[in-house]
Amino acid sequence: MNRFKKIEEKDILFFGSICGTDSIFTDDENFAKYSKDYTEDLRFVPEIIIKPKNTNEVSEILKYCNENNICVTPRGAGTGLSGGALPVFGGVVLAMEKFNRIIQIDERNFQAIVEPGVINEVFQNAVKEKGLFYPPDPASKGSCFLGGNMAHSSGGPRAVKYGTTRDYVLNLEIVLADGSILNTGANTLKYSTGYNLTHLMVGSEGTLAVITKIYLKLIPHPQQTLLMLASFESPEKACEAVNGIFKAGCNPSACEFVEPDGFRLSSTMLNIPFEIKDKIGAYLLIEVDGNKEEIMMSECEAINEVLDSFGAVDVLFAQSSDEKEYFWKLRRSIGEATKHNNTYKEEDTVVPRAELPELFSGVKEISTRYGFRTVCYGHAGDGNLHVNILKDDLSDDFWNNELDAAIIEIFELCKKLGGTISGEHGIGYVQKKFMPIVMPEIQLELMRNIKKAFDPKGILNPGKIF
Amino acid sequence: MNRFKKIEEKDILFFGSICGTDSIFTDDENFAKYSKDYTEDLRFVPEIIIKPKNTNEVSEILKYCNENNICVTPRGAGTGLSGGALPVFGGVVLAMEKFNRIIQIDERNFQAIVEPGVINEVFQNAVKEKGLFYPPDPASKGSCFLGGNMAHSSGGPRAVKYGTTRDYVLNLEIVLADGSILNTGANTLKYSTGYNLTHLMVGSEGTLAVITKIYLKLIPHPQQTLLMLASFESPEKACEAVNGIFKAGCNPSACEFVEPDGFRLSSTMLNIPFEIKDKIGAYLLIEVDGNKEEIMMSECEAINEVLDSFGAVDVLFAQSSDEKEYFWKLRRSIGEATKHNNTYKEEDTVVPRAELPELFSGVKEISTRYGFRTVCYGHAGDGNLHVNILKDDLSDDFWNNELDAAIIEIFELCKKLGGTISGEHGIGYVQKKFMPIVMPEIQLELMRNIKKAFDPKGILNPGKIF
Repeated sequence: MNRFKKIEEKDILFFGSICGTDSIFTDDENFAKYSKDYTEDLRFVPEIIIKPKNTNEVSEILKYCNENNICVTPRGAGTGLSGGALPVFGGVVLAMEKFNRIIQIDERNFQAIVEPGVINEVFQNAVKEKGLFYPPDPASKGSCFLGGNMAHSSGGPRAVKYGTTRDYVLNLEIVLADGSILNTGANTLKYSTGYNLTHLMVGSEGTLAVITKIYLKLIPHPQQTLLMLASFESPEKACEAVNGIFKAGCNPSACEFVEPDGFRLSSTMLNIPFEIKDKIGAYLLIEVDGNKEEIMMSECEAINEVLDSFGAVDVLFAQSSDEKEYFWKLRRSIGEATKHNNTYKEEDTVVPRAELPELFSGVKEISTRYGFRTVCYGHAGDGNLHVNILKDDLSDDFWNNELDAAIIEIFELCKKLGGTISGEHGIGYVQKKFMPIVMPEIQLELMRNIKKAFDPKGILNPGKIF
Repeated sequence: MNRFKKIEEKDILFFGSICGTDSIFTDDENFAKYSKDYTEDLRFVPEIIIKPKNTNEVSEILKYCNENNICVTPRGAGTGLSGGALPVFGGVVLAMEKFNRIIQIDERNFQAIVEPGVINEVFQNAVKEKGLFYPPDPASKGSCFLGGNMAHSSGGPRAVKYGTTRDYVLNLEIVLADGSILNTGANTLKYSTGYNLTHLMVGSEGTLAVITKIYLKLIPHPQQTLLMLASFESPEKACEAVNGIFKAGCNPSACEFVEPDGFRLSSTMLNIPFEIKDKIGAYLLIEVDGNKEEIMMSECEAINEVLDSFGAVDVLFAQSSDEKEYFWKLRRSIGEATKHNNTYKEEDTVVPRAELPELFSGVKEISTRYGFRTVCYGHAGDGNLHVNILKDDLSDDFWNNELDAAIIEIFELCKKLGGTISGEHGIGYVQKKFMPIVMPEIQLELMRNIKKAFDPKGILNPGKIF
């Protein structure tokens, strides 16, 4: 049931008067483009796409939509994996791609001010030129927007050493549903001045307010990286080795787990060779970074010892920056390669790190019992395992109606192990129905009431999270 | 105007029936003790002190108070500096001191579960025995409770390298005003599962819910520290040197600024000698930690070069653990020594790090112009400067009525420099009136509405923040 007002000609005229008619779109090509993101094969068609250029335009649009009960779905690059940018009730898609300026890189304070439509990797490269480092690096870093990264507190391989997006956001300029513009915090490393609205915004998936400016913390860029690929016969042993690495006091800048099928899919899609030896059940891709090679080498040796002690068959060191790039490209492309190859669902399971072996075995037991195939990979150092469920030749009936029972079992296992149903992809549209597994109704109601404090009429990204 | 119901005999009987009569207190000695914290010389007398022993008791008490419109002020160790634990409307003081168990230290996952009444340092020592590290270390670490640390996202000297309390909280068990018990998150390093209630609770000063259990992240304990004390003639140059240290790529585990009067006060109170040489205008106390002495020494050398280049008169290296302890004791005692010596107000200014010299000169200019003395010290590496304003022989009229104008100027300067009015002490009761300097009414209203989502009747810690 759609409780929002349909968009009429007079609304379109109003939006044109605010943003210019060259910033509003109602053609089929744009409807097609903005009706989907990277989530499964879902489609929801908006009634209009608006691409505002500045905060005042966002404010005017929201104020009008709030007064007229028109729903608004903010959208970054559309690389989300939980359907957070899908306009499930139609209405306005507020596409933030014109907010693409890096406003300032403050080398004195190790800070930057950016607009939410800046591509993650573009920003990383810009600050790297000044010797600075913005660590969060989702697999989609070449296309995803920083604003979308805020929406889910995106992580990526480096989160294991450097934390997720949350850990780098100092302050946000936001526009509330009624058009009010405010800053959530201050540009300081510490903040104890009332409720932390900045941290509440991060991970709120566009349901509380629209982010129009981001104040980020930066750190000095490490000068070097070393990369190793270890192969194991037993995936459980690989998972155990992950915890062993941290127990040994090592602090890798990436610690990724990949099942052979992951690399198989990405090497096929990318058309680059990758030999998978007999009996190999899992890989760990481990990076160490720093400024002094001898220290990094001694950390790699310590890691190597741990890997040996957990039965690693083989440990390869990348010999050149090209070879590092080759391994990372294979790793980063697994999600896209899965989507390219097959209909799939991606579950973003996360547990305390030492519980990873039990999570992995549990997922495999559940998938065997229900009769589907999974490809597992992810940020093992964070206990964050992406479980790609492949449709293969399963019936539509099973896929649409029976698979949920298996997903529920997987998420119940996460909960039992002290974990939850999303580490970095968010809840959005597709995981919403699973929220009651990890939280009681009173907690969902609390979240709904927090939303009401920001957006009393519920016009912002309705149909998401709860 | 007090809108809450006064406590009557029947309420006292009810509380006794829940917690046992040995857990409720209405005697003068307890009224005196629980009517103050470490904030200035303020006193507000509660009507009853209740010391619950477990979550269910907290739940029953809150449910009753909520139904009967009785206000509740949660209290940790009472070491707060913004009056957050003062029962400004009387009612119940909920003293959490019986919640003093370390429930679990999970060495596999580098996590711990604690109750909120555990003393910070007791916990630090317990995890250190297992090779683990809980970095947040407020000056009051020997007496403050972890629950109170949650309330303000407490920092301390090590925050410059390791972050504040916020960065170590994974999950909280909380009790809402209506008695509902829930967990705010999961025990995972990453979390993108709906609004981040954990991070909203941290820094909310007991106004949203009562924390009854805390799930903390730990890290491996660094094996060694080195400590240096640098003296400068110009305090502004000392502040500039702080930024120089970070610009040089160094990452000290503490970087503290102290005016000579700070050490003078603490050495007098502690009755331990500390020689302040002629013309010295400021000190920097800098710590480096790690596991390898040669790396730490080379970092100290790099810092030393920076200090030299900013005109340090002298750089002393602590030669023993006793000498380190001596310097730290002097540093940690400044706040208490100021209170011991004089009536004072403490402002918790914070700005982006590179703006510290301008903040310092501005504070001194304002204090000279208004005619009062300040002692400044604090976590310079975080841009967090504690400004102690001394009453000396100023008139009560100036102190109570005219000083605010100067404080407003100091806070306006913080805002202008991109900072705010509290980095780690919170707003509580005493800074509430200054909130409009850094945020518009719409933002305060947003916070009030968030509070309503948790505590619709406003019984929890009323009269604080906004």
